[in-house]
Amino acid sequence: MAALQIGLLLFPNLTQLDLTGPLQVFSRIPGAKVHLVGKTLAPVPSDTALLLPPTIAFADCPQLDVVCVPGGVGTDDLVGDAETLAFLRRQAEGARYLTSVCTGSLVLGAAGLLRGYRATTHWSALDDLAAFGAIPDRGRVCIDRNRITGGGVTAGIDFALTLAALLADRTTAQAIQLMLEYNPAPPFNAGSPDTAPEDVLKMLQERMQGARKRRAAAIAQAAARLDAETETAA
Amino acid sequence: MAALQIGLLLFPNLTQLDLTGPLQVFSRIPGAKVHLVGKTLAPVPSDTALLLPPTIAFADCPQLDVVCVPGGVGTDDLVGDAETLAFLRRQAEGARYLTSVCTGSLVLGAAGLLRGYRATTHWSALDDLAAFGAIPDRGRVCIDRNRITGGGVTAGIDFALTLAALLADRTTAQAIQLMLEYNPAPPFNAGSPDTAPEDVLKMLQERMQGARKRRAAAIAQAAARLDAETETAA
Repeated sequence: MAALQIGLLLFPNLTQLDLTGPLQVFSRIPGAKVHLVGKTLAPVPSDTALLLPPTIAFADCPQLDVVCVPGGVGTDDLVGDAETLAFLRRQAEGARYLTSVCTGSLVLGAAGLLRGYRATTHWSALDDLAAFGAIPDRGRVCIDRNRITGGGVTAGIDFALTLAALLADRTTAQAIQLMLEYNPAPPFNAGSPDTAPEDVLKMLQERMQGARKRRAAAIAQAAARLDAETETAA
Repeated sequence: MAALQIGLLLFPNLTQLDLTGPLQVFSRIPGAKVHLVGKTLAPVPSDTALLLPPTIAFADCPQLDVVCVPGGVGTDDLVGDAETLAFLRRQAEGARYLTSVCTGSLVLGAAGLLRGYRATTHWSALDDLAAFGAIPDRGRVCIDRNRITGGGVTAGIDFALTLAALLADRTTAQAIQLMLEYNPAPPFNAGSPDTAPEDVLKMLQERMQGARKRRAAAIAQAAARLDAETETAA
């Protein structure tokens, strides 16, 4: 049986749980070959103490059946990175599913791969999606044809189980869920802007102001570049 | 302000999400310095394609405030590893919290650090805890004095948020939860033996038979060694 080729993109300053949640689920899909794809094989810093060594470089990466782009502050740079966007466009031609977690969807967007597609992202970035012609969706997991996008960070686990059921079957996905004892019981009900205490949301929004401004600037630039490319191509 | 020293143990064949869930949460605690502690600095293979480079070796590790042992099939070897057990006992003398995720609690048990303590682990390993004098607890997160243990794999996120509230405060833990959009919505209700469809549970139990036998043998040996050491010391 030909392996199911699943590739997760590595890049500097990704939020490591965006990557490692889906990685855990994908690795338990029978017949799946999971790649951690970097520009080169040089280990990549995450947003934590964990350094992430790629298993394969862009140049050697086979055609993937599933492309998954995690998120994190590193996507501010990635939306303007021509080499990465070209890699994603090339892979998109033959991939069965183009997927993302968190702000990874902004990178798919910057590559022009979400035009006219519903997509989700981290709650703080939903408004940024429209710049790339995507239709922001508040779902935790958003499926539109072969684009499957997950919300912020931990939504990657729900996204990956959803995809596992599509790639294998429901029983396989449930067995993975049981093996990972994914029977969540958060100690607080603060995981969404709709449920978090008001002071917590306010504190976080104030703390994120600088980061959101930097993201908005990066998105504006990337969207302008994408529009210019599209006009040139038309 | 002196940093809060948090150390997560790295060892071959750990289940990477046992580690990376808590790592994500701990890394967002203000003032926390998070270490990935290996026997040496050599990168350690996980149960997935992800290789895990330690940030510090046993010999150079400062006294930790929090010791956290993740789980995975690698704990079969770890419960018999004198160097690791000695490291944990040494750290236990000055640590504020001794913690674990999944079968990591079996390693704390093998080090003699759970005698008379309630503790939890992966659902498939609950019965193994008693061999080390621990009192098995079916909670997803179990707190008994300064021992805090989490259930299987994804329970590490609930465990870590619980601990974040103890180390910092409730507001800080809630802000981390909101930042990580931890508002779980599993696509299936199969995350516990109590809720999983019967055929899924049965399939998994059959598939795990070999692994459970190997674990039982490792635990029996480790418990005998611990009892012998205790008698010698008495």
